Formats: sequence, C-alpha cells, structure tokens
Amino acid sequence: MDTSDKTITCRAAIAWAANSTLSIEEVQVEPPKAGEVRIKLASTGICGTDDHAIKGLLSAIFPFIPGHEGAGIVESIGKGVTSVKPGDKVLTLIIPQCRECSSCLHPKGNFCEKQDVLPSSGLMLDGTSRFTCKGKKIYHSFRTSTFTEYTVVPEIAVAKIDDAAPMDKVSLISCEVPTGYGAAVHSAKVTHGSTCVVFGLGGIGSAIVMGCKASGASRIIGVDINEEKFPRARALGVTDCLNPQKFKKPVQQVVMEMTGVGADFAFEAIGLSDTMLAAWDSCHRSYGVCLIVGVAPLNSKLSLDAPMIVSGRTMKGVCLGASAVFCCSEIPDDKRCKGILGDFILSCITSLIVPE
Amino acid sequence: MDTSDKTITCRAAIAWAANSTLSIEEVQVEPPKAGEVRIKLASTGICGTDDHAIKGLLSAIFPFIPGHEGAGIVESIGKGVTSVKPGDKVLTLIIPQCRECSSCLHPKGNFCEKQDVLPSSGLMLDGTSRFTCKGKKIYHSFRTSTFTEYTVVPEIAVAKIDDAAPMDKVSLISCEVPTGYGAAVHSAKVTHGSTCVVFGLGGIGSAIVMGCKASGASRIIGVDINEEKFPRARALGVTDCLNPQKFKKPVQQVVMEMTGVGADFAFEAIGLSDTMLAAWDSCHRSYGVCLIVGVAPLNSKLSLDAPMIVSGRTMKGVCLGASAVFCCSEIPDDKRCKGILGDFILSCITSLIVPE
Repeated sequence: MDTSDKTITCRAAIAWAANSTLSIEEVQVEPPKAGEVRIKLASTGICGTDDHAIKGLLSAIFPFIPGHEGAGIVESIGKGVTSVKPGDKVLTLIIPQCRECSSCLHPKGNFCEKQDVLPSSGLMLDGTSRFTCKGKKIYHSFRTSTFTEYTVVPEIAVAKIDDAAPMDKVSLISCEVPTGYGAAVHSAKVTHGSTCVVFGLGGIGSAIVMGCKASGASRIIGVDINEEKFPRARALGVTDCLNPQKFKKPVQQVVMEMTGVGADFAFEAIGLSDTMLAAWDSCHRSYGVCLIVGVAPLNSKLSLDAPMIVSGRTMKGVCLGASAVFCCSEIPDDKRCKGILGDFILSCITSLIVPE
Repeated sequence: MDTSDKTITCRAAIAWAANSTLSIEEVQVEPPKAGEVRIKLASTGICGTDDHAIKGLLSAIFPFIPGHEGAGIVESIGKGVTSVKPGDKVLTLIIPQCRECSSCLHPKGNFCEKQDVLPSSGLMLDGTSRFTCKGKKIYHSFRTSTFTEYTVVPEIAVAKIDDAAPMDKVSLISCEVPTGYGAAVHSAKVTHGSTCVVFGLGGIGSAIVMGCKASGASRIIGVDINEEKFPRARALGVTDCLNPQKFKKPVQQVVMEMTGVGADFAFEAIGLSDTMLAAWDSCHRSYGVCLIVGVAPLNSKLSLDAPMIVSGRTMKGVCLGASAVFCCSEIPDDKRCKGILGDFILSCITSLIVPE
C-alpha cells in the first residue's frame, strides 16, 4: 500500500515530561513537507545525549520523541528532495549539513547552523511538528526523533548508506562510532606513541579508544565508575583502567602521577563539567590537547584555572567526530560537502564493524 | 675593573610588598653560580605580567625585583656556561629552554618545566637568591628580574642576539613582540582573509595585530577601554576599534553582530577572565580559535558555558608566542633546541623593528 502523502499511524516512545518514564504510544506521523524525508526506522541507538534530553538537562521541549541515532529506509520524500529516494537505506544525523551556512562552507566547520541541539526548538525547519498523539502536538528531538517506527527528518540530516549495510547494527554509525573515532583520528589527530586518557567507556568512549589505538597510541588510560566496562575496554586497547571512586585523590592527579607529565590527549565522553575539568587537568600543561566530546547539561559551567591556561594546553570541542570537516577536506576544489557524509562514514570505518 | 667573581653593588627597583610603589634601592648582586649568567642591563620593557606580579596577583614572593623583558651585555658567567661569554649581547627569557624536560623535548612544547612563573619560587634553580638589600634577601621575578642595573639569570633563560642589535629597543623582542606576533603567526596560524579580534591593544596586542596583518587577515577588530591606543592600532592594521564601555551590551555580542557569525580568531592579551570569556564568545561557534595570551590573576577562574563547548571551538594557551615550538620545528632531526631562540626571534621579526 502506498503510504506516501498519507499520515501514518505507528508506535513511538514519548517523553511526556522531564525525568518521566518513556511511554509507548500510538502516534500520527504526517507526510514529509518540501525538503523533508519520512523514514521507516529499522534500528536506533540510545546515546547519552538522549538520556540528557529525557532528563530535561538539555533544552528539549516536552512532550517529544527522543532519539537521533537511527538507521532506516526512506518511505517517502517531500518536494525538492534529490539526494535520497524511497527504498534507500539511510542514517539520521544529529548535526545536519545544509551546505550553505558559515559552518558548512568553512573547511573546519562541523556545526551546521540548521542544527537543533543547542538550542533546541523541537520543530522542523518550517517551525512546525510532524508528530501528534491523542490530538496533541508532539515535539521532535534534534530534528531526528528515532524512538519511533516512522520519523520525518530534513533531507540535510539524512545520509544515504550502502544497500548492503546491516540495518540492525548500522545505526551506531549514525553518531556513536564517528563521534568517538573521529574525535581521536580527525580532531585530535592522535599521534603514534602518545599517551591518551579517555573519560567514559560507553559507546562513544569505546570508539575513541579504537581511534586512539588505530592512531598508534602506546598507552590508553580508560576512566569509568562502572568496572563492568573494563574487560571490553581492555579488549579494545585500553592499557590502564581507572575507577575514580577507588581513589581518595582526584583522578586527574592519579593520571598525572601515572604519566609523570600528563597525557598528550584527553577525551571527555560523559558530558559533565566535573569530568571535563578532570580531562583538562589530566593533560600535559604545555602541549596536552583536551577534546570535549560529551554534551554537558544546560546552564552548567566548566570552571578553569584561568592563569594556567597560558601554559599552552588546547581545549577543543568536537561534534560528530569532525566528520564533515574531513569530508570537506577531501574535496578541496569545492568546499561544499555534496551529501557524501554517509558514504564517507561507512567507508572510513567499515573495518570497525565487528562481525558476529 | 674586572668585576667577575665579585659582588656588584648597583641600583634596582624593589617591590617591597603587594601594591606598594616601587622603590629604587642600592642592592648587592652576587656573582653567577654554575650555569648562571650575570648581565649588565641596557634596557627593559614593562609588561602587564610585571604589573600583575607587583600587585600581588601572581605568586611572586615579596620583596622582589620585578621585570623579565630585558636586553643587556653579559658581565660574567658561572661554571659550565658555554652558550654565551662576557661581552655578548643577550635577551632574558621569561620562559627558559632547558632542552631536557618533557616540554622542551616535545615538538609542540613551549613551557619549560624550569620556568618560574606559574608557580613562582622567586629563587634561582638552586633554591637561593643572588640579591640582597640592606642585608635582607631579595627575591627574583620569573628568574629574570630586569628592573636593575645588574641581574643574574640561568643560562637557559638567556638568548644571544646580534652585535648590531639596538640595545635601547631590543628588549621588547625578549617577550612582547614574539609573544604577540607568534601567537598570531605560529600558534593560531591566522589564515588569509580571516576575521580576527584582539582584546587589549597594548604592546602584546599591537604585536598580535601585526601578526594578523602579516598573515593576511582581512578584518582586525581591536578592543580596548583606552581610546588613546586606537590611532596606533589603526596604523598597525586594526580595521575596527571598539571601546566596550561605549556599549550597553557585552562586547562579544557586538562582535557577533558585526561579523554575523563570529570571528575566525580571537586573542586575549589583557590577562583577565572577563576578557578571556569575551574572546571565547566572540569566536565562531564551530571553527573559531581563541588564543589566551594574557596571564590571569592567581586563583581566578574562567567559567565557560559547558554544553556549548562541543560545538567545536578551540581554546589554546600560548606563552612567548610558541617561539620554541617554531624553533624546534626548524630542526626536525634534533628535537632539542640548541640555544637558537634568540637568533630565531631576531631573524624572524627584524622587519618589525620600526626605524626612528
């Protein structure tokens, strides 16, 4: 049955209010408008940033359908959509690529002005929603909303992927893997023989570890309060596992003592200002590079020792693993990325998909 | 008269207590010990960091002889000194180069572990002072102390310069000029056609402006509350002068509105956390680079909006213009800098010395 141009009724998880349990509801998903794509989702990841949104720690508008790390098949397209067609396998992107804004046109830009994370309107680009539930307007999350059977996403936030992609696993490549792997490989440019420290050994932290390992880091210190993650972390390349709760002193001091001089590269993949500070203070004072990968709660502050900044450390934020940056750098004659992000991500990290 | 091996009595300016007026006193300057150099100073600059130290905003130990931006002639050398000899023209360096520590041996390191700025002991490397006044021990400032007719400095903090160097002007090349010019050229690597904003249009800010201009920046916004500095700033390349006190809104908002998207590069050359924050928030959210050149007061904090860090900005501290980094990169076969910093600085910026 051709569902295009029709409203689809399906199931979705809704966050009705901050910190409430998600509720599985029947929702109506309107057809895509011009420049939009409706997707039948096959799988979705659950990212820490979704958890932050559900807890009300970001600027999400309630009630909304969470999720951004989605893999699915295009069900229908709105007017003017040219980069994908019904039946295409696609990923959803938390950071779109409009290919027109100051960020997209800059060779080092990776935070498209059309993003809806910081701040978040909960609406599509035309200022309206495509979701209703029990007659009530339901907001979008990051213009992706993947905790649903069907979603509507701007074309600029959709990346076509290979027909052979395994749809039950590939959603992780929508955000988690490129975010972590790219932070190490594209943004930090981890060097051979270096010492790295990774705060948070979840999905993104694991991908960071893989990126550090692939870049030839000789020591990778992993930090997490959940020791159940340590065996997997060691399998991926972590050489030293630290549980901060096992020490009476701050973990950054432990890292300083272990390394003598501080880490070459520190990564924060949790999204808390305390662990951001610990990552910063784990770096070598002169040449250390601290990558902030996690999204901290709204209105939280990272308070740095101001006089010591001059000693030379670098702090760098990185979203989606600076993938667009790398993508752009591959086509120097045309700074605009031509929708190849999905292909790029896949080709770049195909080797990371662990066979069953 | 040969003064080597003898204590020299001369005049010096002493900061007896925080915020007190400097007092010109007769002081005794002991001969240099092993690895040290005694210098007859010809001129000294007055840097904002000296002012911070005198006001008690850094960890200086009182009473001390301030100053670090010195040019002079070697009077005598201690045992084992090989890089300079009596009669050589030299500059003093606030950040030494021991050529042995983790920072000196790293291709991107520029904050030698033998520095005495953050924190400051006020003593030579052997833990003693070379200065006395009225029988009382007088502390060193940054192991340079240039507000005196004679000083003693570690050999690793001395750079030999050309015999033809004009001694009344060249002291500015000890810190101010390479600090500012190098921050723009070596650390930020300002790009052609970029928009830069410089907070503080004093000596270092002026050198930053020169570095931005030399790098081909197309717009240079200068920010200072002292409008008397504006004509010189314009002569050096500033295209837009802003006095923050003339606006009801924060100056970073003014910069955002002027540029539409934020600056490519922002430089803080004042040493206050408020202006550091303004510089950070003047940068483009995704690809902006904020260089912290000023030294903030001890115990002051720079409080950043934590969630927005992930959007991609870079913050980078830079001391002495990353000159040692550049120096090291010139001799890739040997990562140790062989005392060529002084020559490097001079050769690099000779063209900047304005003829009378």
